[in-house]
Amino acid sequence: MEIKMKLYDFKMAPNPRRVRMFLAEKGISCAEAGIEVVNIDIAKGETFSKEFREISPYGGLPVLELDNTGEKVLISESMAISRYFEEIYPENPLMGTDALSKAKIEMWNRRIELGLYTAIALSFRHGNPMWKAVTNQVAEFSDVSALDADKHIHKLNKHLADSKYIAGDEFSVADITALCAIDFAKVIKRRIDEEKHPHLARWYGLVSARPSAQE
Amino acid sequence: MEIKMKLYDFKMAPNPRRVRMFLAEKGISCAEAGIEVVNIDIAKGETFSKEFREISPYGGLPVLELDNTGEKVLISESMAISRYFEEIYPENPLMGTDALSKAKIEMWNRRIELGLYTAIALSFRHGNPMWKAVTNQVAEFSDVSALDADKHIHKLNKHLADSKYIAGDEFSVADITALCAIDFAKVIKRRIDEEKHPHLARWYGLVSARPSAQE
Repeated sequence: MEIKMKLYDFKMAPNPRRVRMFLAEKGISCAEAGIEVVNIDIAKGETFSKEFREISPYGGLPVLELDNTGEKVLISESMAISRYFEEIYPENPLMGTDALSKAKIEMWNRRIELGLYTAIALSFRHGNPMWKAVTNQVAEFSDVSALDADKHIHKLNKHLADSKYIAGDEFSVADITALCAIDFAKVIKRRIDEEKHPHLARWYGLVSARPSAQE
Repeated sequence: MEIKMKLYDFKMAPNPRRVRMFLAEKGISCAEAGIEVVNIDIAKGETFSKEFREISPYGGLPVLELDNTGEKVLISESMAISRYFEEIYPENPLMGTDALSKAKIEMWNRRIELGLYTAIALSFRHGNPMWKAVTNQVAEFSDVSALDADKHIHKLNKHLADSKYIAGDEFSVADITALCAIDFAKVIKRRIDEEKHPHLARWYGLVSARPSAQE
């Protein structure tokens, strides 16, 4: 039973990058695995089109479309798509291998997502003209969120003083989420300061040297 | 090898309730499973104490403490704790049983969390005096977030017109997240309006009648 797959993607956005990095770390090539990649240009407003809203009712990218003998299933949310691939390709696990490692990776992934990643996204959304048409922007909140992102960067630096990767000794999906968040932070003019954040800088060098980080 | 467990809990907060509901749905009784429950009073500011910050460096409740022959491991984040229990007690699965159901449940759980739940939490945090000391409150953003919560409630009502539970035909952790979010919405004065949201009201009646909803 062959399942046809389509991945709706956009090179410039952080969430689609999370899934591309995840696939690269698993050793899955879209071309070899028969996954058709469809480009949706967020900058041109293509995620707001009626056609795309039928694929992604919550408006998010990426989306994985599974066509199983004519019945289409649409999976959005980077972590849900990543989990699907973790299940069908168990090699090179990125979400843990036993109850404890699965829980620790989930904990750290969420801390990054609900903390740093959300602070950056909210600051961007409330401060950048690109989002004006679809957000009740509150400029003061954009500033408050950027300060919140700074606090999360500081906290992450402290954590990485005695942790090789985000969730411990092994590279995991939490490192993918954190790398995509840190690189995304440039939209709110945040960069790693090597003097202030030496541990974060050490981790950043380690993780961004992986071939998957080129995605 | 016996692992001693402690669950840091608070009856009045929505995140600890998610884990208690999850355990109840799995058929796990803390007393029978030897899980010691420790009450941390958020309203009295106990999550801000130095002692608690050592247990939960990000300040969140609940926390699961695992003491495996003297080595302590601390797991926070409701979903990470839930995943730990899903792994060690596979009966009555609430996070899916195959790649597709796991991905769909994760997608819906995230849509609820990152959408409705976050909108309610942000509106509460920026609008309620309880959070003044630890948040740079932006009152206008509290109002904007409450309107965002309304949009998510409207969307969820539409979705439930042709879905028995949040993630399809089966009850899952996504229903627990959604029920805890909807009940939490009373802090920003949001209730289900049966005329405006008949499908959400139907689902709410179904899910809140489960014994686990008493948690």
